[in-house]
Amino acid sequence: MDDRSLLDSIRHLIGEDETADDCAAFDLLDGRILVSSTDMLHETTDFPKGMTEFEKGWMSAAVTLSDIASCGAKPVQLLVAVGLDDPSRLVPFMEGAVSCAKTFGAKVSGGDIDSHIELTVVTTGFGIVEKTHYCRRSGARAGDLVCITGTPGLAMAALEGDERYRKNLLTPIPQVKAGQKIAAAGASSMMDVSDGLSISLFDMSEASNVGFALESAKFNLPDVRAGSAREYYLYGGGDFGLLFCISRERLPALDAEYTVIGKVVGEKGVWCDGEPVEKRGYAHSW
Amino acid sequence: MDDRSLLDSIRHLIGEDETADDCAAFDLLDGRILVSSTDMLHETTDFPKGMTEFEKGWMSAAVTLSDIASCGAKPVQLLVAVGLDDPSRLVPFMEGAVSCAKTFGAKVSGGDIDSHIELTVVTTGFGIVEKTHYCRRSGARAGDLVCITGTPGLAMAALEGDERYRKNLLTPIPQVKAGQKIAAAGASSMMDVSDGLSISLFDMSEASNVGFALESAKFNLPDVRAGSAREYYLYGGGDFGLLFCISRERLPALDAEYTVIGKVVGEKGVWCDGEPVEKRGYAHSW
Repeated sequence: MDDRSLLDSIRHLIGEDETADDCAAFDLLDGRILVSSTDMLHETTDFPKGMTEFEKGWMSAAVTLSDIASCGAKPVQLLVAVGLDDPSRLVPFMEGAVSCAKTFGAKVSGGDIDSHIELTVVTTGFGIVEKTHYCRRSGARAGDLVCITGTPGLAMAALEGDERYRKNLLTPIPQVKAGQKIAAAGASSMMDVSDGLSISLFDMSEASNVGFALESAKFNLPDVRAGSAREYYLYGGGDFGLLFCISRERLPALDAEYTVIGKVVGEKGVWCDGEPVEKRGYAHSW
Repeated sequence: MDDRSLLDSIRHLIGEDETADDCAAFDLLDGRILVSSTDMLHETTDFPKGMTEFEKGWMSAAVTLSDIASCGAKPVQLLVAVGLDDPSRLVPFMEGAVSCAKTFGAKVSGGDIDSHIELTVVTTGFGIVEKTHYCRRSGARAGDLVCITGTPGLAMAALEGDERYRKNLLTPIPQVKAGQKIAAAGASSMMDVSDGLSISLFDMSEASNVGFALESAKFNLPDVRAGSAREYYLYGGGDFGLLFCISRERLPALDAEYTVIGKVVGEKGVWCDGEPVEKRGYAHSW
């Protein structure tokens, strides 16, 4: 069983709409939406070996800031709950979290400290976005272009030992500015690809009730070891790029770097050059 | 080392003001404050033996709702991050969390699911309070009355085996309505006593730079086994009552049940009938 099927088992308790995105939304009833997101990470499954405490702190903040960015929101605050096996880890860990938050305009404003068997972190972040700009996984329309920011696959390459991309894996850069620009330009849907491009496309397909026809000739494949580029690009997790859909007419207004990789089609599913793409990516499993 | 001294080691990173309360605050700049709080609980240290999954879910929501209540805020949303050793625990656990949230006017709007060595939960909640009503641990003034809601010590009695108070320990009731009424009546400071009354008084003394002179004759001692009432009352954790200070003039406007237990004095510290009270309560330690 993986975390996606487990989530299915509690949708009736929380709501279909509420479980469809990485962020929860709260209408401030003054034209603004408060978005929030929470992420649990822990030593044995989420932090690659050899990471410093600072990098673990940075990554913990970055995963949540990335979710907030994917709504088009401006992050404002982070809360960091830390379960520690060794209390001396706290200071360098929090230096990393605070540094990442500051870099992207947010403030670590609180948290909780607990003793635990292993380092366990839950970072919760809040952001604010104008209601008219708020982006979700749903909303993609047939005919829209499918676009991404960044180069998927670099974090996976680092995980497989490519030292050139070590920073992509260990101190990832949430696309906070790009997210706000994409939302302001009028994207119809957006999410981050931290679980991998393929699985993210399937998630968006489900939420938007559309499909995606990709063209491999348009892929900005990563410069990685021979034979791995397409695999890393489609299925590697850990990259913090944004996947978004937008109408052709609105694209010229977008002042951000992006790659168009295909278009939205009416039928649910994901295809590349006409062939079905495998539904696979990062997932927790039991 | 305990969690209070560990928090001291990161105050320079987060800010003195930000680490002084159980909730973080964000000014919505329209007369409202968004308060938020996050709490980590896990099987081996936080859930008494014999609890059902439902009760664990309820308690996880309740601890956070209690923090939000202590600011005088109306809780609106909860995010629940759950690390599971066994995925079949999720549904009954979430039923408890959702039930507690609903009972107190909040909505579970999202979360995260992870695999973990042991059940580990981080609940993060948001609430909204008018700026003029927002209560903190700081703000108590010499001459104010010191008051509490509820009967401290009942959860401790249950932990020691008194079955009459099992519900107080396992499905605690956050004082959400009372918190809003106390704040609206103009309390100068407020916090919950979930770590115990004594340690909470010391925390408030530090934050408000005042002291507390308690009168034992005013204590609403719990009906517990002989010789334990005062110990449980002052030092037992797990109760979700509110501790607040308020001027004598404002008290008549307060439409809630409370007990006046003493008064605020200028010198920092906590005394009972003139004798120093021991600084002790619930703490995580390594």
